[in-house]
Amino acid sequence: MAQQEVQNGGGAEIKEVSFTAVKPQLVVEAPKAGDAISFYKAAFGAEEVSRSLHPKRKADQEVPLILSAQLLLGGTTILISDGPDDSGAPVKAAGAGCVLCLETDDVEAAVAKAVAAGAVSEAEIADSDGSACCGGSVGKLKDPYGFTWNICTPAAATGAETC
Amino acid sequence: MAQQEVQNGGGAEIKEVSFTAVKPQLVVEAPKAGDAISFYKAAFGAEEVSRSLHPKRKADQEVPLILSAQLLLGGTTILISDGPDDSGAPVKAAGAGCVLCLETDDVEAAVAKAVAAGAVSEAEIADSDGSACCGGSVGKLKDPYGFTWNICTPAAATGAETC
Repeated sequence: MAQQEVQNGGGAEIKEVSFTAVKPQLVVEAPKAGDAISFYKAAFGAEEVSRSLHPKRKADQEVPLILSAQLLLGGTTILISDGPDDSGAPVKAAGAGCVLCLETDDVEAAVAKAVAAGAVSEAEIADSDGSACCGGSVGKLKDPYGFTWNICTPAAATGAETC
Repeated sequence: MAQQEVQNGGGAEIKEVSFTAVKPQLVVEAPKAGDAISFYKAAFGAEEVSRSLHPKRKADQEVPLILSAQLLLGGTTILISDGPDDSGAPVKAAGAGCVLCLETDDVEAAVAKAVAAGAVSEAEIADSDGSACCGGSVGKLKDPYGFTWNICTPAAATGAETC
């Protein structure tokens, strides 16, 4: 009975969820992410941990787009990405593209809990396929205050090709 | 002679600078920061560590503005603030107000190095006076990719009235 009320009340069962990291992802007007990474190294001494490139970017194009580069700065990880280019809406407002990547082992439960609290799911939970900042699966939420959150499983601790 | 060349060359002597933290600061359309904090607690289980209120907000106004609240989420600190209200330009684009707070013991050197690398200083380095997210002094930079950085001394580890 109690469980049924919970299920009926929020449209989804609310589980406890724990998170392992929040990483600010700076989405730069394409194709300037590489320049931005160089700038953060020069300006703040950021250290590049990994960089993954867009697999669909044509080889003959001059600059491969950066899906996600992981920089270490002040003991904190920040992510730098090129905004969508020909495959999506361009990032128009420079500096407006700040996404919060929130890592958890249970993406589905985390998305359900946030949606029950008032967030809006903007995409089905999907395998990241190297196309997101994170390992495994990823869900995308817009919160009631206009901020975008990527809820994702932690990034694999591998080499330079994934973040 | 060498020192003079450095001073003439970059406009400032470049020192090594180290940083202790990056904290994303979400600037919410005033006066919704309190609601946003409640939402992040409900949606993500964020824990409120501290909250500082705007000292100039009139007592008869219904909701005191939040200068900065510090939330712990996934082992990471995020800051939530009300955007400028009557004293400054309003925060128009919800979700666009993401500022990166970058902590260092040497704000002056950090600002000089970043400006030499291409950032633009948007305000004189000033005492934070409780009016920023950080303890001590704070400098404000816009980077060439449109992101705003507050360079500041680490927040004092005191109670609820400062962050």
